[in-house]
Amino acid sequence: MEKLIPGLEGVPIMESQVGFIDGQKGILEYRGIPIEVLAESSTYEEVAYLLLWGKLPNREEMAKFDHDLRTHRRVKYRIIDLMKCLPETGHPMDALQAAVAALGMFYPAKIDPAEIQPGTDVLARDKHYWSIIRLIAKLPTIVAAFERMRHGDEPVRPRDDLSHAANFLWMLTEQDPDPLDARILDVCLILHAEHTMNASTFSGLVVGSTLADPYTLVASAIGALTGPLHGGANEQALRMFREIGTVENVRPYIEAKLKAKARIMGVGHRVYKVKDPRAYVLQGLAEHLFRVKGEHPLYRVAQEVERVINEHVGAKGIASNVDFYSGVVYDQLGIPIDLFTPVFAIARVAGWLAHWVEQMKNNRLFRPDQIYTGQHNLPYVRMEQRT
Amino acid sequence: MEKLIPGLEGVPIMESQVGFIDGQKGILEYRGIPIEVLAESSTYEEVAYLLLWGKLPNREEMAKFDHDLRTHRRVKYRIIDLMKCLPETGHPMDALQAAVAALGMFYPAKIDPAEIQPGTDVLARDKHYWSIIRLIAKLPTIVAAFERMRHGDEPVRPRDDLSHAANFLWMLTEQDPDPLDARILDVCLILHAEHTMNASTFSGLVVGSTLADPYTLVASAIGALTGPLHGGANEQALRMFREIGTVENVRPYIEAKLKAKARIMGVGHRVYKVKDPRAYVLQGLAEHLFRVKGEHPLYRVAQEVERVINEHVGAKGIASNVDFYSGVVYDQLGIPIDLFTPVFAIARVAGWLAHWVEQMKNNRLFRPDQIYTGQHNLPYVRMEQRT
Repeated sequence: MEKLIPGLEGVPIMESQVGFIDGQKGILEYRGIPIEVLAESSTYEEVAYLLLWGKLPNREEMAKFDHDLRTHRRVKYRIIDLMKCLPETGHPMDALQAAVAALGMFYPAKIDPAEIQPGTDVLARDKHYWSIIRLIAKLPTIVAAFERMRHGDEPVRPRDDLSHAANFLWMLTEQDPDPLDARILDVCLILHAEHTMNASTFSGLVVGSTLADPYTLVASAIGALTGPLHGGANEQALRMFREIGTVENVRPYIEAKLKAKARIMGVGHRVYKVKDPRAYVLQGLAEHLFRVKGEHPLYRVAQEVERVINEHVGAKGIASNVDFYSGVVYDQLGIPIDLFTPVFAIARVAGWLAHWVEQMKNNRLFRPDQIYTGQHNLPYVRMEQRT
Repeated sequence: MEKLIPGLEGVPIMESQVGFIDGQKGILEYRGIPIEVLAESSTYEEVAYLLLWGKLPNREEMAKFDHDLRTHRRVKYRIIDLMKCLPETGHPMDALQAAVAALGMFYPAKIDPAEIQPGTDVLARDKHYWSIIRLIAKLPTIVAAFERMRHGDEPVRPRDDLSHAANFLWMLTEQDPDPLDARILDVCLILHAEHTMNASTFSGLVVGSTLADPYTLVASAIGALTGPLHGGANEQALRMFREIGTVENVRPYIEAKLKAKARIMGVGHRVYKVKDPRAYVLQGLAEHLFRVKGEHPLYRVAQEVERVINEHVGAKGIASNVDFYSGVVYDQLGIPIDLFTPVFAIARVAGWLAHWVEQMKNNRLFRPDQIYTGQHNLPYVRMEQRT
């Protein structure tokens, strides 16, 4: 019997070429291209293509992919009606999970086991190509529709003359998005699109290994992203900055947390022992945004938190991660705090699907083992004799 | 770097006391009690208690648990309305995943990371106890409601004077269930309630490790169960028997499949190298049912399939599994073929939740690794220069 490794830390579960992390050096690459370069030069749509196909698209490939995404943004009115049955007070991530699970019922995508052979490229099959297009294209529409409806407004129809990021801001506000806001959200989507074997990608792979369809596996992965130890962290980082409130309060607050060994959200990461490369990019974006539009009232609080943490535990390799700055940036863009995790999902769906495409080339059902620590061959004691 | 073990076969992911399988000897135990004994003497409700609490309930404990389940069977009309938005032609498992994801929005169950400490017993906390009750109690209501509504009928209201299994048959047909049918379904639910680290339980654990709430993790686990390599197999076994049609057709059909190395559903199992102990119980149930009500027209086909397979590959440890007979039994009970997997979910939810209860006593976020086989530090080639 193998030894138990809690959380499977360090245990490889797949051979993969989608993303790469070097947590010691602070490197993140998508298909071999460093994240900083993509954040500087690419768009979310191009990055989604890169992750799925493993190469940057040429002009014709990009034009077709972008066109297909733009023209599949609408969701059926029955999905809108379904979301109208959901309580306004519920978390938008749960609404997203429900809507995505429902989405698959409208577009037959079930997989026959005989369809998947070694080397099968699902991208080359119409049924699966269109599932991928629909999922990437419609997730922002679903999230924005729930946000509008819970405030009593009708959903805003998507526009096909806007980029993926700009259209999302349009659907949230029904206002022409500011180009800087749209570009900053675009970069945030790039930064969150893929991150190797995190819990949501992993749950997607476990579900995918049963040959469940892509809508189902994305709905399952969304479930993992709802967890406060995974996708919920940027929401909690901003809530912490709000709770601290002022620069003066930072030191006593953080020192009390460190003393109590309490978890501090947005700080530390299982794989990064230096500052998360995405956090550098986000901090740069935040500063650019603040120079143009005025500083976010909590940015100095965030910086002071980073300083105090560095002072105390920086030497232990505990540094700011992507969630540390993304909350402040989203807040500045006017995105409501409980949509931060849905925005993460809107981005990460490209990574989940890229891993699924790779998995279908060489699938093996996940069926791990356990270490049984219980008893054996116990009798069925009659009820009268039970304690 | 560790070696890659595809599907994590043999790799322990948890210490557990919920279920135990010895695939060489054909043993399955729940909390140490052999499955045959439970199938003979227990009920689904009692088995659910056993799995969750780790002991058989005394009279008071059973009375309270059973009462709580019976009085939480109804679902809110908004969940019914939500399901009315779903296409009648969609798979009931997708409807179940969507409805369970939505369910969590009506009952706040979100987890604060500070709530979960080493040793935390979620069963002792009201919020989590009631989530568990609701999930077990309402899954049959959701499945039956979708079945009724897709045929244009209003859902049948659950009755609290019937057992879990009998009430499900009532809600499907609006007829007083035959006691033998109800008992046979009860035993089928017992047999499917738990099976250690299968793909759906595993995906539930991955999602649970993020501290997602139980509705969310059950919705994710339902996703894994939709896959034809996991929960979908009994449906496919019956479809195969229908396709074969007659006893005479069995030998050529099976021999052709074996020759083509095609997958035969209901036969072979990753962990059992002898006949699945649940298959013995199910075969006994099937024969009892057929003696009373007349033989299912495909039962002889099934027996002949088993004989031919045994002849060819029995020595290799490939034998009938639980899915082989359950399809014939469900068909005889009048359960539509595409509800077989939802019935599996109705049973397995107890196992998923028992593993979650155990996990919350000692949680660790799943964050495995990968073997990266791609390139590094590639340039961002300008679009004009791409091929």
